[in-house]
Amino acid sequence: MSSIALDTTAADQGDAGALRPPAAREEIARMLRRALRGLHAPARRVALHHFGWCEQDPAASPGGPGGPGKMVRGTLAMQVAGAMCGDPSVALAGAVAVELTHNSTLLKDDVMDRDVTRRQRPTAWTVFGESQTVLASDALLTLAFSVLLEHPAESGLAAFRFLAKAYQDLLTGQAMDLLFESCDRVGVDDCIRMADGKTAALLACSTRIGAVLAGAQPYQADALEDFGRHLGLAFQYVDDILGIWGDPATTGKPAGSDIAARKKSLPVTYALAKGEDGSLAGFYAERTAVSRKDVARIAIAIEEAGARAWAADQAARHCSAAEESLARAGIPVERQQPLRATARFVTAREY
Amino acid sequence: MSSIALDTTAADQGDAGALRPPAAREEIARMLRRALRGLHAPARRVALHHFGWCEQDPAASPGGPGGPGKMVRGTLAMQVAGAMCGDPSVALAGAVAVELTHNSTLLKDDVMDRDVTRRQRPTAWTVFGESQTVLASDALLTLAFSVLLEHPAESGLAAFRFLAKAYQDLLTGQAMDLLFESCDRVGVDDCIRMADGKTAALLACSTRIGAVLAGAQPYQADALEDFGRHLGLAFQYVDDILGIWGDPATTGKPAGSDIAARKKSLPVTYALAKGEDGSLAGFYAERTAVSRKDVARIAIAIEEAGARAWAADQAARHCSAAEESLARAGIPVERQQPLRATARFVTAREY
Repeated sequence: MSSIALDTTAADQGDAGALRPPAAREEIARMLRRALRGLHAPARRVALHHFGWCEQDPAASPGGPGGPGKMVRGTLAMQVAGAMCGDPSVALAGAVAVELTHNSTLLKDDVMDRDVTRRQRPTAWTVFGESQTVLASDALLTLAFSVLLEHPAESGLAAFRFLAKAYQDLLTGQAMDLLFESCDRVGVDDCIRMADGKTAALLACSTRIGAVLAGAQPYQADALEDFGRHLGLAFQYVDDILGIWGDPATTGKPAGSDIAARKKSLPVTYALAKGEDGSLAGFYAERTAVSRKDVARIAIAIEEAGARAWAADQAARHCSAAEESLARAGIPVERQQPLRATARFVTAREY
Repeated sequence: MSSIALDTTAADQGDAGALRPPAAREEIARMLRRALRGLHAPARRVALHHFGWCEQDPAASPGGPGGPGKMVRGTLAMQVAGAMCGDPSVALAGAVAVELTHNSTLLKDDVMDRDVTRRQRPTAWTVFGESQTVLASDALLTLAFSVLLEHPAESGLAAFRFLAKAYQDLLTGQAMDLLFESCDRVGVDDCIRMADGKTAALLACSTRIGAVLAGAQPYQADALEDFGRHLGLAFQYVDDILGIWGDPATTGKPAGSDIAARKKSLPVTYALAKGEDGSLAGFYAERTAVSRKDVARIAIAIEEAGARAWAADQAARHCSAAEESLARAGIPVERQQPLRATARFVTAREY
């Protein structure tokens, strides 16, 4: 078992306060609820269910079991702004926009992956049907852009451009992920590009938008975008390690769930590229049911190809790179603490 | 058989030149192709198929059978700009944006309605699958917003706001249309609201965006938005009449196709609201297969309830209202001609 800490200071923090600042999260939630009131009824009822909020009782926050999620992206945007200029709330519209965008993609992901549970509630498409869920997802995305452009400040327009670009990258990552399902062979570089689009692009956009809305210099916005991107990639490597070797008691998923789904995740593409064991390639080319014995055997084969050590090393490298990016953002050290804490929350899971 | 002419001058026009100005259509197509080059590969290949364009051969325009469509919305935006300021090309970004938005919705409509043919080609989802098509549709929508905001002029931001609002209305119309499928009873007012969102909102937005980008006064933009909205509603009434009583030789669809699909279109909701013939309500509450005899019987019942005359009257009223709206837009009469011609093209079909 090992764990990656972005730095020892962050590792000393308790989980509750610094990692997910309740103030920022509550402020984002309040603004999100207000933004959802601008939706027409059909999209609003889907969105309220998805966030775990009840239309009739606005006081029932965070609402249904699992609540509206951790809001890591919005929190990062506000923490970056706070670190830059001392006032997190200048990035509130940006925080709401990235959360709306993220949740728009979750609604469609659940339709495409046929997932039936999210945040301990039935997924929206199982309640409202696929079409209504896709339409509501579109409404959230459009609302995200509108929220950013509500105030005609030049920084809002710049933020829009980054969000639109990040969203195109995200769509491409998602499209590649789906295309990989029917490819017998996926290159490591393609898989990294996929993860960069599907996971890292919106995190990178969140930190950049926080910087832009706080009036950062271009070199600072670049550094903070890199910080978010490396966090996103580190997160994905850790997530893929847990998807194969994670402890069900910690992950809440069955052991080797990514093997059972024949998911061509980062460690898998690395092992396949090594090509030493023909049985691995055979397994990922098959379409038959996967037994528990298969899962154990394949997990060992992937590990023996060196993929687990490689993925852990990549995660550690991206954590270091995130730290270096943060260091060159020109933020006084004493103001970096909340960002380091959230970084640790995102990347440091036991595995 | 009757037909609605917006005015006698328009009725005198030949179809080819004035109705679908090849110059505007070609300019929009050229800019659309250029915009699509900004998409990543997975979305671009879906979009190029949908528009009937070949990636390898840019000269092959308009490409596959059926081409990229009539581009009525983009043409209206440019004609409005031409009428306002003499230069249609000031609205080119707006024309491209409304066409991208319209085609984004068509991609998803075909998935939701399980339609297999569009513009004489297989629909995108039958070629690329549902998920890739939905993702490409999202990419087109995001591109539409980006195109409008490429130049940071204040009018581009205003145009964005109208497009975002129109798109939310459109999503709501589409959501209502799908919800109606499982309702035994749909009110006439609800059905009109649905048509206003699903069909009229984007046409109204197209004419308004053309006005805004041409620097129109608010009263002119309001009048031209009304012009587009009334055109959209007139179109929908005519379309619904043809869906029940249209001649298959003209419509290209089987006789009474909307009855066979038990579509709760405008004339149907009117007839159901009259409630004189219980057999109509019974038919629309059933889920069994529809025979050819049923189609003929129901078409007669709807007509006997006065719904055909009502719908024709409503179409004529909206044509008149469109004409009145155009008249109060402060455009010199000699510059109104292309708009009247396109209006006639949109609304005046034999029925």
